[in-house]
Amino acid sequence: MIIVMNSKTDDADVEKVIQKLHEMGHKVHISKGERRIILGVIGDVENLASVPFYAFNGVEDIIRIVKPYKLASREFKDFSTTIKVKDVIVGGEEVVVMAGPCVVENEKQIFETAHQVKALGAKILRGGAFKPRTSPYSFQGLGEEGLKLLAQAGKEAGLAVVTEVMSVNQIDLVAKYTDILQVGARNMQNFVLLKELGKLKKPILLKRGMSATIEELLLSAEYILSQGNYEVILCERGIRTFENYTRNTLDLSAVPALKGLSHLPIIIDPSHATGRWRLVSPMAKAAIAAGADGLLIEVHLEPKSSLSDGAQTLRLDTFSRLMKELRPIIQAVGREFSTPVECELERMKN
Amino acid sequence: MIIVMNSKTDDADVEKVIQKLHEMGHKVHISKGERRIILGVIGDVENLASVPFYAFNGVEDIIRIVKPYKLASREFKDFSTTIKVKDVIVGGEEVVVMAGPCVVENEKQIFETAHQVKALGAKILRGGAFKPRTSPYSFQGLGEEGLKLLAQAGKEAGLAVVTEVMSVNQIDLVAKYTDILQVGARNMQNFVLLKELGKLKKPILLKRGMSATIEELLLSAEYILSQGNYEVILCERGIRTFENYTRNTLDLSAVPALKGLSHLPIIIDPSHATGRWRLVSPMAKAAIAAGADGLLIEVHLEPKSSLSDGAQTLRLDTFSRLMKELRPIIQAVGREFSTPVECELERMKN
Amino acid sequence: MIIVMNSKTDDADVEKVIQKLHEMGHKVHISKGERRIILGVIGDVENLASVPFYAFNGVEDIIRIVKPYKLASREFKDFSTTIKVKDVIVGGEEVVVMAGPCVVENEKQIFETAHQVKALGAKILRGGAFKPRTSPYSFQGLGEEGLKLLAQAGKEAGLAVVTEVMSVNQIDLVAKYTDILQVGARNMQNFVLLKELGKLKKPILLKRGMSATIEELLLSAEYILSQGNYEVILCERGIRTFENYTRNTLDLSAVPALKGLSHLPIIIDPSHATGRWRLVSPMAKAAIAAGADGLLIEVHLEPKSSLSDGAQTLRLDTFSRLMKELRPIIQAVGREFSTPVECELERMKN
Amino acid sequence: MIIVMNSKTDDADVEKVIQKLHEMGHKVHISKGERRIILGVIGDVENLASVPFYAFNGVEDIIRIVKPYKLASREFKDFSTTIKVKDVIVGGEEVVVMAGPCVVENEKQIFETAHQVKALGAKILRGGAFKPRTSPYSFQGLGEEGLKLLAQAGKEAGLAVVTEVMSVNQIDLVAKYTDILQVGARNMQNFVLLKELGKLKKPILLKRGMSATIEELLLSAEYILSQGNYEVILCERGIRTFENYTRNTLDLSAVPALKGLSHLPIIIDPSHATGRWRLVSPMAKAAIAAGADGLLIEVHLEPKSSLSDGAQTLRLDTFSRLMKELRPIIQAVGREFSTPVECELERMKN
Repeated sequence: MIIVMNSKTDDADVEKVIQKLHEMGHKVHISKGERRIILGVIGDVENLASVPFYAFNGVEDIIRIVKPYKLASREFKDFSTTIKVKDVIVGGEEVVVMAGPCVVENEKQIFETAHQVKALGAKILRGGAFKPRTSPYSFQGLGEEGLKLLAQAGKEAGLAVVTEVMSVNQIDLVAKYTDILQVGARNMQNFVLLKELGKLKKPILLKRGMSATIEELLLSAEYILSQGNYEVILCERGIRTFENYTRNTLDLSAVPALKGLSHLPIIIDPSHATGRWRLVSPMAKAAIAAGADGLLIEVHLEPKSSLSDGAQTLRLDTFSRLMKELRPIIQAVGREFSTPVECELERMKN
Repeated sequence: MIIVMNSKTDDADVEKVIQKLHEMGHKVHISKGERRIILGVIGDVENLASVPFYAFNGVEDIIRIVKPYKLASREFKDFSTTIKVKDVIVGGEEVVVMAGPCVVENEKQIFETAHQVKALGAKILRGGAFKPRTSPYSFQGLGEEGLKLLAQAGKEAGLAVVTEVMSVNQIDLVAKYTDILQVGARNMQNFVLLKELGKLKKPILLKRGMSATIEELLLSAEYILSQGNYEVILCERGIRTFENYTRNTLDLSAVPALKGLSHLPIIIDPSHATGRWRLVSPMAKAAIAAGADGLLIEVHLEPKSSLSDGAQTLRLDTFSRLMKELRPIIQAVGREFSTPVECELERMKN
Repeated sequence: MIIVMNSKTDDADVEKVIQKLHEMGHKVHISKGERRIILGVIGDVENLASVPFYAFNGVEDIIRIVKPYKLASREFKDFSTTIKVKDVIVGGEEVVVMAGPCVVENEKQIFETAHQVKALGAKILRGGAFKPRTSPYSFQGLGEEGLKLLAQAGKEAGLAVVTEVMSVNQIDLVAKYTDILQVGARNMQNFVLLKELGKLKKPILLKRGMSATIEELLLSAEYILSQGNYEVILCERGIRTFENYTRNTLDLSAVPALKGLSHLPIIIDPSHATGRWRLVSPMAKAAIAAGADGLLIEVHLEPKSSLSDGAQTLRLDTFSRLMKELRPIIQAVGREFSTPVECELERMKN
Repeated sequence: MIIVMNSKTDDADVEKVIQKLHEMGHKVHISKGERRIILGVIGDVENLASVPFYAFNGVEDIIRIVKPYKLASREFKDFSTTIKVKDVIVGGEEVVVMAGPCVVENEKQIFETAHQVKALGAKILRGGAFKPRTSPYSFQGLGEEGLKLLAQAGKEAGLAVVTEVMSVNQIDLVAKYTDILQVGARNMQNFVLLKELGKLKKPILLKRGMSATIEELLLSAEYILSQGNYEVILCERGIRTFENYTRNTLDLSAVPALKGLSHLPIIIDPSHATGRWRLVSPMAKAAIAAGADGLLIEVHLEPKSSLSDGAQTLRLDTFSRLMKELRPIIQAVGREFSTPVECELERMKN
């Protein structure tokens, strides 16, 4: 940590800061320049996090040198984390596609979707049972009934499932039915929820908040990791900017950035990020080219009658085309992509 | 609601949209221009919120004309809401100052602060017992012990109290000790929490999320109102922008904007917004000049030893000066400000 | 300057950085911690600005300690700059209101406006002759004819005038007619223009760019100052954020921030910032309460027929009310406000 | 265009708006709902752009339906524009890589770079002679000497060249030496410059401003097109957001968005966007996967001694690896990529 002080500060005031650092058990390097005095504190400065140095006379800036997260950092763990969900491995050689509707609406919808996306190569079925909606008057999901349908559809189609948990009091219920618990963007800093999920023994898909920095995403992951649950999948889903043609701005630079800073797998949700189905396929391909470990894609048998977010949802034919177009990109970046035989056959015909 | 379609759309595709609108019980006005076809839907279109019109061929844009919130809108209620907290009225003629430390640290700290801010004219005591912290390694508050101390300090000093509730499973506990329950910026879209708070019979102080629009803030208020709790105090505390000299950018335009759109009272938190104590007083004065109903200000007896957010905390002498400087501004905008006799006396001396 | 290196860096690589610093004539303080190596360079490091230290092996971060601007900084000049424009002083005790239409439209409009705003207490007449418009199809101003009318109207009413210059090839022409040259937000980083304006002997009103940080605003001022023109008036006019209820987000925290960092006067343009005339008066009052030295306000005799930006323009009656409401705020912050006799009389009647 | 009025507006006030529309030569469709009155104006409403409808009583919102740009829109021109620069075609089947240093520093540097990037498959040589720098104290380029060196290096290596023009008074000089004139992000709304460039008969590379929307980028292109120069290449180079790990946030969604809205070619600058060389290659690959027509990449023989932006500059070996990795991505999206024989040979060896 570096503490920058004005060079006109009284010696007594400089001394007070130094004394505080000594009290907390730290050695201090002092460099006096013409315009600034710099105090360098080396080593493990975690116990200084809550000392309000800005309140001392003459202090102009406090600069952290070491990252504030540990368990999530690549320095802590040099090789990439892989997470096994049933027979699927997230973060390994294979690119994993998670697909399904925004919301579980009824048995027919989720069962048919499950079979179709499985046939096209998806490995994990997504679908919301509890939906965070900006307006209290929007449809908020089927609740436990939705969870049951999702779990059954996944089982029948041979797919693992992922669904959102919105609150601590839903954890037990959701965990009973799902293979991966998703934390939505609006809950990325719901720290009570994160801590409880850290005590679970199931993978967590943690979505980046709309206005969260990459560092804050990793600190939220750290909340889960620090409680003992090491299976966290990061997910970039668009950040909020001034641009309003797209719903959010998909920050694909976060992929190589997170790969450098952390060992956790990272997947991309191009559906929520763009809010426009025409942009989903190009951005899905771009995500893989940038190095993402997987995709989370909204697919609906009949977007026109979907109960939520139809504007960004792919129809099956568009999703099928995307899955074919992904393959050469995946190969180009040296990753793997397993597609079921039916799909292979169809591919050869095309 | 307006649906904009491309003028080259097939008649059959236009007809499909019109048919859907008819099915949902709506009349449609059709205007065909050279470049666009416009379908106008008049009246109560709430049942259309979940119809994904973007998924229909030819649809280019969907424009809502009526605001998506109702109970929070000035159209629903023409006069301003006042909220009585003990003997204090928020949203009335008087400007209300809520002051206290970021976190309740110990008995001495909170009791002394309570007496001092009371003497200087604050009406409500603030102090965190459960603190949302970006890092899992930061001090997170004293929990119930903090709540007890806060309640006792408020009682002894004759101040109502406000403190944050972070999760549904804390509501009962927090409500037992506090007069106002605060929802933090990071929980503004924790919809499960909002709904449960809507069933309470205590005022809620709802902070705007760092990346929430004014409309989203009002929709979150609507979640609480729609459950029957009409006592919501809105709080602007800075939004996230590219500027990094200040921690966040205090959006004071939100004050007159919210006053025009809603009947709910609005207060300003200049401490969290700026993150720098030197900016707190100027922005507190600006907030009142812009029409805010009150202020939420961090005050600490000894910022240098505070366990949280010392950089933005006012010392008692600075807070005292601010309270004096506020008075003429408050008078200038035609509001009232009751200050206790001791303070008046001191004021006359100065 | 601080250079942060990974503690696993080879000694040879650390040595290369140190050697480079020595070559450039600097002493280096080295602190080796468990996780980071820190190289501190003290003194005048301007010659290091263009050395790409990030390209050296092991370098993780480069942290500037001293601000990159000099002449604009409060450290360079301890007392506040005042700028005399005809008989008006900007940056002194008095709050200065600059008012007038967005665009000079015709003789009648600008002459009547000049007399009216003068009568109500404005000191400087604003009006555009060259208008930067987002669309090439919008009205772009009267050019030299507009400059002439503005200058004559100002002269007749006894007001100094301010108008925008958009390009180096307009400087001579604009300078011939105006007392202050305005650089618009879109040109804040038009460095060729800034340099040329630095050679002029007339005050420059420099508007903050929509996405410019406070530091970048001061660096743009530095461009002008470094050429020898020390009369720069800073102007905050809203920054671009995700909020879309207002056209931009007025960053009033910039007022106390700039007052702390720089000696230059700062004025606020609440008209362009909010884009809604109902928000102009509250934000004008807030600006003064925050410590601004003046205001730039759009006033039109008949906003409904204005050729530009009518939505944010005050009518004369609204402007008159604002001028009255400003007085007690100005007094509350200890500043002065000179209003002509007519206005005083009218004020007494009210 | 749609004008939304409050349903409580007096009939006389509604009538005034309608009358104004009639005066301007437009037919009006009126729909009265319970909460809003909607006036629909069909057809070519360009003459309404400057009518300040917000200034009329009762007007709540004004909604444009037709895009404000014409010549840049895909509706105006259905097939994609291709731009021939010497023997290179931008916007055609082939992906075009423009590479070179940020700044032309000396003869050796630019000549060697030109030959090397040519050998590796770049088609256009980039290099700055006039550099817009945030600080007046940074190196600002060699001026005409730089232009000459760039032109000679391009000629000798058989590469077209692109360089930035910062001001109207530089146009003639820059146009004399370069094949493509670049407008930098800070000048995207320098409308005087855009208009003059519209009179030129050379291609313009127009960079998106840091806080410009996609619509504003197209409006700036419209400035150039409307003067008769139809050869505009759009360039996304990162927008300003709250994220500060990367210098800017590369908005790759702009690629498919612009492809849908406009017929103009679009290229990506991953160097300036990310500001970190480790992120350049992943984002370059992602850009191509998203559908970009080309790349603008900073390459330096020796980044450690570069005079500008070394942090984001690729060394030749990294650039060489990127060019190889791009090929399969380019093929995967069905585009072409011509690489010279030397490179092919080297590729086979690897």
